Amino acid sequence: MANVYIALLHYPVYNKRGETVCTSITGFDLHDIARSAATFGVKKYFVVNPMPAQREFAKRIFDFWMDKESLEFNWTRAEAFRLVSIEEDLEKVVAHIENMESKRPKIVGTSAKPRGTVSFADLRKEISDKDKPVLILLGTGWGMAEELFAKADAVLEPIGGNLQYNHLSVRSATAIILHNLLGKR
Amino acid sequence: MANVYIALLHYPVYNKRGETVCTSITGFDLHDIARSAATFGVKKYFVVNPMPAQREFAKRIFDFWMDKESLEFNWTRAEAFRLVSIEEDLEKVVAHIENMESKRPKIVGTSAKPRGTVSFADLRKEISDKDKPVLILLGTGWGMAEELFAKADAVLEPIGGNLQYNHLSVRSATAIILHNLLGKR
Repeated sequence: MANVYIALLHYPVYNKRGETVCTSITGFDLHDIARSAATFGVKKYFVVNPMPAQREFAKRIFDFWMDKESLEFNWTRAEAFRLVSIEEDLEKVVAHIENMESKRPKIVGTSAKPRGTVSFADLRKEISDKDKPVLILLGTGWGMAEELFAKADAVLEPIGGNLQYNHLSVRSATAIILHNLLGKR
Repeated sequence: MANVYIALLHYPVYNKRGETVCTSITGFDLHDIARSAATFGVKKYFVVNPMPAQREFAKRIFDFWMDKESLEFNWTRAEAFRLVSIEEDLEKVVAHIENMESKRPKIVGTSAKPRGTVSFADLRKEISDKDKPVLILLGTGWGMAEELFAKADAVLEPIGGNLQYNHLSVRSATAIILHNLLGKR
C-alpha cells in the first residue's frame, strides 16, 4: 500500500464570485471518493469541515452505513468507509498523520488551473518511496483558497482534456488524480 | 473533437444479488458525468432509462438548470448539460447516433471484471480515426446485464488499482475511462 493520504476541504474555498466560503458535505463526496480511495490504496480519506453541524451530518451518514446490518448488506461500502476520518481543519489532519507516521507529510495542493509545480509522473515516482507520507489536498466549490496553497509544499499539475472547458466535479477529478498516481501501469 | 458518445444505462443491470433490475437516475449521475463528458470532448451523453417517471425526473433536473436564470448563474453546468440526451433504451441511442452520423457506431461495453477484449491504448488509437463513431456503454447498479454485452462489438479492459478492492462509482469510473481515452498526453 502506498503512503498516500487525501483531504477533501470544504473551507476555505472560493465560490463562483471568488469569495471565501464554507461548502457543504454531500453524501456523494463520502461515497464516491471513499470508493476511489479504497480502489487505489489510499491510507486515509479526511473529510474536512469546520462547521460542527456539517461534521455531525457526515458522521450520521457514516454511522448509518457502518452499522451491523448495512455492513452485511454492502461490505464494499463498509470497506471504503473504513478509510474515512472527519476532521475540523487542515492542522488537525496533519496532526492525525504525524501521529500515525511519526513524521510530517509532504502536502500537495491541486488546482484546475496551471499553477502546478509537480507533474503526475514525478509525484508518482516520489510516492513509490513508501517511507515518505504524502497528503493530497482536494478543494470543493470553485477551488481551494490562496491560504491553503500557502500551506502546500507543492501543487500538482492540472488534469487536461484537450479543450477549453475544464470543470470536472471534485469526485471525478479525485478519481483521475488517484488513477494517475496509484493506478496499475 | 473526438467522435465518441457515452450511454449511462439504468436497465438491464444487475443488483447485488445478480438479479436484473432497473436502477434510478441520480442528480449526480447527470452533473458529474456531463462535466466529464464536456471536459474530455464527448459528443453526446445519453442517460438511458425505460421508466417514464425516471426520464421525467431527469428532464426536470435538466430543465431547472437550463432555464435562463440558471444559465447566467452557472454557464459551466449549462455547457455540460447541453450534451445530455435522455433516452428510453439502447436501440433509441443507436438510432439517434445513426441519425447524426449516417453510420452505425462501434459499441464498446465496460466492466470492472477482466472480460475486456480491447485495451485502453488500442481503443484510444481507434478513436483517433474521427470517421468512425464509438459508443461507450456504462452500467449502473452492479454492472451491465449479459444481454447488453451481447449487443457490444467489444468490451474495454477494466480499470486497475493494484489491490483486490475494485468498486469505483460509475461516476468515478467514467471520469477515468474518458481521461484514459481522450485526455491530454
